[in-house]
Amino acid sequence: MPPVITLTTDFGEGSPYVAQMKGVILSLLPAAAMVDLSHAIPPQDVHQAALVLGDVCPRFPPHTIHVVVVDPGVGTEREILAARIDQQIYLAPDNGLLDILWSRHGVGELVALVDAQYWLPEPSPTFHGRDILAPVAARLAQGVRLDQLGPPRTQPVRLTWPGVHLEPRKVEGSVLLVDAFGNLITNITREFLASAPTGAELTIRCADHETRGIVRTYGERPPRTLLALFGSGGRLELAIAGGHAAATLGAHVGARVTVTW
Amino acid sequence: MPPVITLTTDFGEGSPYVAQMKGVILSLLPAAAMVDLSHAIPPQDVHQAALVLGDVCPRFPPHTIHVVVVDPGVGTEREILAARIDQQIYLAPDNGLLDILWSRHGVGELVALVDAQYWLPEPSPTFHGRDILAPVAARLAQGVRLDQLGPPRTQPVRLTWPGVHLEPRKVEGSVLLVDAFGNLITNITREFLASAPTGAELTIRCADHETRGIVRTYGERPPRTLLALFGSGGRLELAIAGGHAAATLGAHVGARVTVTW
Amino acid sequence: MPPVITLTTDFGEGSPYVAQMKGVILSLLPAAAMVDLSHAIPPQDVHQAALVLGDVCPRFPPHTIHVVVVDPGVGTEREILAARIDQQIYLAPDNGLLDILWSRHGVGELVALVDAQYWLPEPSPTFHGRDILAPVAARLAQGVRLDQLGPPRTQPVRLTWPGVHLEPRKVEGSVLLVDAFGNLITNITREFLASAPTGAELTIRCADHETRGIVRTYGERPPRTLLALFGSGGRLELAIAGGHAAATLGAHVGARVTVTW
Repeated sequence: MPPVITLTTDFGEGSPYVAQMKGVILSLLPAAAMVDLSHAIPPQDVHQAALVLGDVCPRFPPHTIHVVVVDPGVGTEREILAARIDQQIYLAPDNGLLDILWSRHGVGELVALVDAQYWLPEPSPTFHGRDILAPVAARLAQGVRLDQLGPPRTQPVRLTWPGVHLEPRKVEGSVLLVDAFGNLITNITREFLASAPTGAELTIRCADHETRGIVRTYGERPPRTLLALFGSGGRLELAIAGGHAAATLGAHVGARVTVTW
Repeated sequence: MPPVITLTTDFGEGSPYVAQMKGVILSLLPAAAMVDLSHAIPPQDVHQAALVLGDVCPRFPPHTIHVVVVDPGVGTEREILAARIDQQIYLAPDNGLLDILWSRHGVGELVALVDAQYWLPEPSPTFHGRDILAPVAARLAQGVRLDQLGPPRTQPVRLTWPGVHLEPRKVEGSVLLVDAFGNLITNITREFLASAPTGAELTIRCADHETRGIVRTYGERPPRTLLALFGSGGRLELAIAGGHAAATLGAHVGARVTVTW
Repeated sequence: MPPVITLTTDFGEGSPYVAQMKGVILSLLPAAAMVDLSHAIPPQDVHQAALVLGDVCPRFPPHTIHVVVVDPGVGTEREILAARIDQQIYLAPDNGLLDILWSRHGVGELVALVDAQYWLPEPSPTFHGRDILAPVAARLAQGVRLDQLGPPRTQPVRLTWPGVHLEPRKVEGSVLLVDAFGNLITNITREFLASAPTGAELTIRCADHETRGIVRTYGERPPRTLLALFGSGGRLELAIAGGHAAATLGAHVGARVTVTW
């Protein structure tokens, strides 16, 4: 059984571009097992994609091959990378998509896709996902090694992220992403609140709204009231049970979030 | 070949939360065959999910394992159930999601998920789908039995549904769901119209619009005119061929629909 | 391993109607390998579906079975066809869905689905996708031959398409489709520009906007400026890198596009 190949793109759910990639993979590897990771990445939003990959990919088994096509620079001089990270393989343009995974595991084995024998002939300058990444994924699943794909690299593009600022009795971060429930997921993890004394009443503020205390789960506050909790990814999250916090607060990615006590 | 595992959630198409569940299942069962039933259930809408399950699951083969995560009470005291219904297995929070299936087949074998050895360690209080239901599904597909998962239950949460009222020469029901074509699907099935004499001209009304007669299929009326038919799920349905009945009528789930003669 | 079965519909991503079709296929063929080609075809838009099929299906391996349900005439006298085209098999209502593939490869082996022994019993007049096409796809994957399904046909419904007009120093075409990035994809392919002298500066106009020259890829112009290139399907495409050309230009399918020099 070949390893699973996952696909992550900003092509939109139901995109025929995704289907073309699947067709290419199946043409080379009829037994391919493919899983759609997400095609709902906002167009060209490398940061959002990096966050999704960081949360999702570690859930997959060793040897999984992750193909990521969020590629504003397609056809320009940016390279395409193949990376081994924590026993899994990633194919992605060199624009920072793997930043969170590298922050966690270090930049390990890394090559640039250069050897065109593993690509479709005459790749389109606007769709490397179909003509380069998809066929390379199929070949890796068939046993081609990373070092056959091209020369090693050591300095991939990294991303900058909004910081979390610590002040006396205050932590200031921001919204990293908004999920389909409208929950506002921040860059504040538990360790940033380590200086708050046990039992201190925390006040969490965002966009002129506030809530007191951090609960365990959504059902612990009355419906339609703002609440804060540490979500399933370990990040402080603002939510309205039965509601849509992003719409109610008018808050977007980047909105400032403070925790005070 | 392991049984098919289907996934139904309100996480939204393309949600990374769904992808995390798939990763967990594949990590435990690399040969898993997974099918997305739907991730477009309106957020926390247990009734809509119950309708979808009732229409779709019977189409799947025996031994299919259906994982359902529409779970406004995640992390609270609500239990998670594993149910055997009509030779298939369902994993779902105890909030009524299986109501229609139980109405049809009776509450058969039913247990509460209690034995944590089948879960991921330290389940997040906000994402039981990933940390409890997904791993349990994988274990069931590997041959774990329902009675190993926890103690039996006999009184699951059931739902209440809008009724259909019968009066002389009149049946009054309501819109149960709206599909992607804008068709208004009601709770009026054929048996409710059994008292109408054969050949009676029926008038179907909804939101100040009406149509006469019940046709067989969408193409039997001129384009852009309202028509009524019994849809593929056996329910009376109002549609506009080539149009969008819900938008044209301004009608939503819950809108009153009458049939008179 | 049975051949891949792809599904293309206008039911919407996450539609329970798609899930019903998958259930039917799996009930007949538990080892079925199914791929969603797209369920985001605009409702009843046979032209858009034909374009998607023309672009995507050739990427799939020989013997793939493509099931297409964009079917405004469901339940009327329109027939359902099974076609062999370029070593692949297509099941689709006879409304022009396969027009582009036939233009390219000719109408080859073609039959009408008539023999009800391969269908579900008592097919719903509103959902032939579930009750006729899905079970026939499963049976074809199991080895049933086209000629067992019904009598041959030779004159399927074909589509008409907006033309490309050539004038001295001018080519006039139109937008065929808009992708999820807002790129405007036209019916102007390279051969229509063959009469432009090498090195001529081309001006491409659409909806009161214009751009000069045809670039290779999106990154060759400053962000937020209109550019024109030949896309991965070989068609002239108007795009705004980092933007949404359709929204900025207010242009839709059918909008006029001119190239002058």
